[in-house]
Amino acid sequence: MTAEDAYLWLVNHYRDTAYLCSTAELAAWDQRTYIPITGHAHRSRQMESLARLIHQRSTILQIEDRLHDVEQSEYLKSADVTIQANIRMWRREYDRLVKIPERLASELAKASSAGEAAWEAAVHSNDWKSFFPHLEKLVALSMEKADAIGYQHCPYDALLDEYEVGLTATALSDMFLELKKPLVELQQKIRESGIKPDKKILNGRFSLASQKETCASLVKAIGYSFDSGRIDESVHPFSVGIGPGDARITTRYNEAFLGSGMFGCLHEAGHSLYELGLPEAHFGTPAGMYLSVGFHESQSRLWENQVGRSMAFWKFAKPILDAHYPGVKSASLSDFVLAVNEVEPGLIRVEADEVTYNLHVLLRFELELAIFNKELKPVDLPDAWNEKMQHMLGIRPKTIREGAMQDVHWSAGMFGYFPTYSLGNLYAAQLYAAANEAISDMDERLSRGEFEPLLQWLRTNVHQKGQCYPPDQLIEMVCGELPSSRYFVEYCQNKYSALYQL
Amino acid sequence: MTAEDAYLWLVNHYRDTAYLCSTAELAAWDQRTYIPITGHAHRSRQMESLARLIHQRSTILQIEDRLHDVEQSEYLKSADVTIQANIRMWRREYDRLVKIPERLASELAKASSAGEAAWEAAVHSNDWKSFFPHLEKLVALSMEKADAIGYQHCPYDALLDEYEVGLTATALSDMFLELKKPLVELQQKIRESGIKPDKKILNGRFSLASQKETCASLVKAIGYSFDSGRIDESVHPFSVGIGPGDARITTRYNEAFLGSGMFGCLHEAGHSLYELGLPEAHFGTPAGMYLSVGFHESQSRLWENQVGRSMAFWKFAKPILDAHYPGVKSASLSDFVLAVNEVEPGLIRVEADEVTYNLHVLLRFELELAIFNKELKPVDLPDAWNEKMQHMLGIRPKTIREGAMQDVHWSAGMFGYFPTYSLGNLYAAQLYAAANEAISDMDERLSRGEFEPLLQWLRTNVHQKGQCYPPDQLIEMVCGELPSSRYFVEYCQNKYSALYQL
Repeated sequence: MTAEDAYLWLVNHYRDTAYLCSTAELAAWDQRTYIPITGHAHRSRQMESLARLIHQRSTILQIEDRLHDVEQSEYLKSADVTIQANIRMWRREYDRLVKIPERLASELAKASSAGEAAWEAAVHSNDWKSFFPHLEKLVALSMEKADAIGYQHCPYDALLDEYEVGLTATALSDMFLELKKPLVELQQKIRESGIKPDKKILNGRFSLASQKETCASLVKAIGYSFDSGRIDESVHPFSVGIGPGDARITTRYNEAFLGSGMFGCLHEAGHSLYELGLPEAHFGTPAGMYLSVGFHESQSRLWENQVGRSMAFWKFAKPILDAHYPGVKSASLSDFVLAVNEVEPGLIRVEADEVTYNLHVLLRFELELAIFNKELKPVDLPDAWNEKMQHMLGIRPKTIREGAMQDVHWSAGMFGYFPTYSLGNLYAAQLYAAANEAISDMDERLSRGEFEPLLQWLRTNVHQKGQCYPPDQLIEMVCGELPSSRYFVEYCQNKYSALYQL
Repeated sequence: MTAEDAYLWLVNHYRDTAYLCSTAELAAWDQRTYIPITGHAHRSRQMESLARLIHQRSTILQIEDRLHDVEQSEYLKSADVTIQANIRMWRREYDRLVKIPERLASELAKASSAGEAAWEAAVHSNDWKSFFPHLEKLVALSMEKADAIGYQHCPYDALLDEYEVGLTATALSDMFLELKKPLVELQQKIRESGIKPDKKILNGRFSLASQKETCASLVKAIGYSFDSGRIDESVHPFSVGIGPGDARITTRYNEAFLGSGMFGCLHEAGHSLYELGLPEAHFGTPAGMYLSVGFHESQSRLWENQVGRSMAFWKFAKPILDAHYPGVKSASLSDFVLAVNEVEPGLIRVEADEVTYNLHVLLRFELELAIFNKELKPVDLPDAWNEKMQHMLGIRPKTIREGAMQDVHWSAGMFGYFPTYSLGNLYAAQLYAAANEAISDMDERLSRGEFEPLLQWLRTNVHQKGQCYPPDQLIEMVCGELPSSRYFVEYCQNKYSALYQL
């Protein structure tokens, strides 16, 4: 087989696998939206079977042979960037997967699934005791996984790398070091400013019908078309890329608080715009896939925050809300924008404002790192959590569901995932700064509802690149500088200084 | 490998394939309900990829080896009926599939897909010319397929057997011979009776909201629970069994005609009740699958017609409609039941009443048989159709979309499918007669809304049997007699004599 034929074999093989993954995505979407109650048991077994099939297809020996054929060839040397990237990323994935013994992969899958179910059952009653054995097992299995994969400095690096290629605990420590001080200071200044947003603007009664209409208008305005997506309701909001031309979002409307549905929709629409912007011709290969979890988050956060919580955006968008909500209409633009940018230390990450959000992530990062460095035992997590929360945000959880049990991630064995949330925030700020340089009069455009130039810039510079370049390199290419916390800090300082008259 | 191990290998292999089929069903459901417009291109490619994968899994050589291991064993001789049936049906499917060359299977799949698209595009403008080449090709490929599979008497038998194990043209000819004369006579007598149902009862304005509510009440009453299913809207109504505990229906409400949504829902709910009644423990193996296309249709027709168009049913159910539709409320029970049993020769099969419906099928059967016996050329289909229609029902299509192009089936290469509609009607009448013998006071029970005994009887005698027995044998076991047209003729004669005072 020639190198070119081997490459085409790989493309076809992985594309068929991607169609399978796409059906798994659809099945997961259905599972959280329209499935009838008694269909859940079958669906779980079906998802298990699909995952097994996908894993089998991703680890067959022919992949090794074909990769080898291409890697050794002249063909690859002169191939374009998409082919180079595909081979590089397939190799990476294949090597990772075959390093993990079947037995461990299967145990991890079962423990994750059991852990998530145990968490669901235990979280509302603060039942740490019945959840803890699952957590302990997941930590042990993840440690085993890290050892199987291998690492240079610490086991945690092997876990981080699953979500963000090349990310290390050292790099993260540096990043958070740069973030922590200025954000804690900013938070303090805001508290001392004495300025308090008017709670009545976003809290009250907001009918479901009105929220559906206004949320649809907002996401349509930024470029999310219902020709290629839809909004449904689900307990936990999410977005899902089914495939080219089909990326859906869900949200949860809160009839007493306007912010949930609205910013949830903008956030998820940001994710879906990324999926819809991927190069269709490369579907099923790394060149046609999202770059990393952190990059995915950067797209959602950019539309939710850099755009969606800006003065410019609401100049354009407030009239959309005014038509439905008298409380919003009677508020001034600046009072409204202050209200959507309320800064207040809270216990819950998903409700956190931009300034304190990364501190929630830092807390989790430090705990995860300590666990995988064996400096902290899982059994001591709840106390360690509370200590850190007191230290970083000056508040202390009264219940464990507001503390160490608040997120689903650990229950599913997703150690190393949290830091990507902060990376997303940093990437978003850095990318937005670059877009702002490239697009003249950005604020004026946004305030006129012209989002197309920004979306187009993101498509060209991020979406269309797929996985052609590693995250660090893409940021450097697009922004002229490696990933840095500086842009996020400056963004927060500028924005909140203005809002809170610091 | 022991015979038992070989059997377990087959169970696991086919069950994983069944999970794949289940995701294909879900994807097809989504394709016709909630998919965003621009998602269709991806979905078509995805379905193609899934079909290819399923075909590959269904024809791998290991199946032959494992089947052989079991077939030759003592284990099979003493195995229970489900194991015997599984081996028999797997062998049948495997032998059929491997007889069809890859090239032919792929050409057929492509021609079906292209044919259906061409039909969709051409039917509304009566564009026979652009559709005909597709039809001609599908006939030629199906002929090739019949030759590849093999047959005893005529090529058409090989096609029939795909939908109904063991069905032959000879058996069908006998069956239709017994049906034709009494049904034509009955139709004549009804016309001569001079009795005409009041059209105003079912025709008028019926709001979507009311129809949704009443249709939901009707299907819930017969035992279809929204815990294990749902009703959505689609252009062509259908039902789909996603898996144990999850069988969904769709319908199309006509705001000017009450019958469409209502009987559509009862029909599709009948299909879904069958799926939901299959033995869950045997999911993924023949013992857990519906017996045949004809049997599936028998379940939908039984609930739609034997139950849903009976006086007893409406004694119970008319008040549900009365609460929403003044025109129904003001009609007497007998006038209403006459209205839902209007007999009138029409050009369109899917709108046909019970008396003329089988004549529509007979027409198609005769045409298909003539084509595959090479007594009729595809090019002559439109004229042959019109002649037969004139002869059987005394009416003649003015356009080809009311004639030879009215159904989607031929465009998808589904030759041999139509007869199963009539089989469904006959099975339904025969099964209902047996249920009526077994359940005391059936009419009184139905008129009190007690459908559980009938559903339970069907579950025990049909649903739970899966494919353990061939269709003929199951009918004989349950009804004490091989499949016969007699029960359907008697059912029609009794019912319509009473309604039309013959």
